[in-house]
Amino acid sequence: MERYDIAIIGTGPAGLSAAITAVIRKKRVVLFGSRSLSDKVEKAHTIQNYLGLPSISGQNLQKAFLRHLDEMQIAVTEERVTLVYPMGDYFALQTATNAMYEAESVILATGVVQGKPYAGEEQFLGRGVSYCATCDAPLYRGKTTAVIASNPKEEAEAEFLAEYAEKVYYFPQYDGEVHVADGIEVVHDKPVSVCGDTQVGTLETEQGSYAVDGVFILREAVAPGQLLPGLQTEGGHVKVDRALQTNVPGCFACGDLTGRPYQYIKSAGEGNVAALSAAAYLDGKRRAHKA
Amino acid sequence: MERYDIAIIGTGPAGLSAAITAVIRKKRVVLFGSRSLSDKVEKAHTIQNYLGLPSISGQNLQKAFLRHLDEMQIAVTEERVTLVYPMGDYFALQTATNAMYEAESVILATGVVQGKPYAGEEQFLGRGVSYCATCDAPLYRGKTTAVIASNPKEEAEAEFLAEYAEKVYYFPQYDGEVHVADGIEVVHDKPVSVCGDTQVGTLETEQGSYAVDGVFILREAVAPGQLLPGLQTEGGHVKVDRALQTNVPGCFACGDLTGRPYQYIKSAGEGNVAALSAAAYLDGKRRAHKA
Repeated sequence: MERYDIAIIGTGPAGLSAAITAVIRKKRVVLFGSRSLSDKVEKAHTIQNYLGLPSISGQNLQKAFLRHLDEMQIAVTEERVTLVYPMGDYFALQTATNAMYEAESVILATGVVQGKPYAGEEQFLGRGVSYCATCDAPLYRGKTTAVIASNPKEEAEAEFLAEYAEKVYYFPQYDGEVHVADGIEVVHDKPVSVCGDTQVGTLETEQGSYAVDGVFILREAVAPGQLLPGLQTEGGHVKVDRALQTNVPGCFACGDLTGRPYQYIKSAGEGNVAALSAAAYLDGKRRAHKA
Repeated sequence: MERYDIAIIGTGPAGLSAAITAVIRKKRVVLFGSRSLSDKVEKAHTIQNYLGLPSISGQNLQKAFLRHLDEMQIAVTEERVTLVYPMGDYFALQTATNAMYEAESVILATGVVQGKPYAGEEQFLGRGVSYCATCDAPLYRGKTTAVIASNPKEEAEAEFLAEYAEKVYYFPQYDGEVHVADGIEVVHDKPVSVCGDTQVGTLETEQGSYAVDGVFILREAVAPGQLLPGLQTEGGHVKVDRALQTNVPGCFACGDLTGRPYQYIKSAGEGNVAALSAAAYLDGKRRAHKA
């Protein structure tokens, strides 16, 4: 398997800035995210404080970012990373399609999780609560499950889950039409809490209660502590020093993930620093190997 | 005297980014520096990693910055701040022309001092070594002085000094022609050390030795510890936390001044964060006053 120098997770301003700086530093980079980049940037009406690009719309800022990637021939690997395992000398990354990647260092630029966790969500994680249908669907063969989806991309995930589960309730938490296979029951209601004894037993909503064996909570971003076990966080943000090093050697973080303020130019600046720190980490490791 | 909300010192990417963010936050800002912005940016051949502006020349990046300032109607006050005094509830700023300004908070974005200090420079500071001819020329009435100049702008400073001093040796440390008044002796030589007993006595150079009472060392940037007495520094950089707060309440720092990497996008990101931290500081102070 090809081992990359740096795996960068996230295609918002932090991840993109990290990618261009890492490529200039001649590192082999794999950049995970979406070619449509960041939803948040795309939907911004006007951005006034991105120095050098006065009064720019989110769409045009996105276009400028994409042009920068294209000019530098940086590809986006359109996979969702669901787990990062520190393996000592390198990191193994697993994606939602169960593909595996390896990299010597990792830059987390996944943004902030929108909204608070549901009551019971953290308590039942791994005991009925899952963040990845593609990963865990086979565990629910013949069982009853709920999918809480933050965006239409998760419809395909629910359909995949339905190939295993006996019953799938689908709770879209987004506007617009829902298109899912016939067997899936779409419920327009707001989940409130995940309940149970030692395992998930019910999903309570504003207007009802659903007996389920599993709850899939599918959001744009995975909470950082779930993505990389052992990563030190503080109030939902990854703890970093001024060089954007996390507590895990070889793992760096940048952008909204590292804390407020949530600003595009701050994220872009941090991406640059994280990439240079990762490059210095790699160079140091190689010097140590030679010595 | 008008008291500004925020005084920003420096017109590189950090200072400019701080200024646009502070103005968006509706703060009254005074921005000290040069309308020609940063020499370092201007002279950069190509910048590849300023996300959103791929492969841009230094001159064009400078133009983009200036357009941003102009669109937001942010003026540059073309004065060199030589001293910042913390006055408890506000800061007093003194400029090279002896003008005084007041601001409730200060953002330092003065960049890094190029090169190491000369031997003896720090030892004799205030005892014959000065960083400001405009401020200290009157102290050298009838005396012999040396001016070490890092750029042609200092020629005017040397001429001002010559109105007081009996003798001025001028050591240009830059390329190109030198234009100074007739009485000034231009010496093309490299200073090495400032020597003396309790006061400056001689300036030693690579090729000679000059008996002088005072040495004016005129660089683009003033060392941060000289600019604001009591400011905590570390290896020539100002010590800041992740919010870019220095050890002096109400004083923030951003850009190259806070340490490596020296990168434009890092500086712009930090300027944004420093401005938001300064705004939060001011808002907190006002809430405390009302309570």
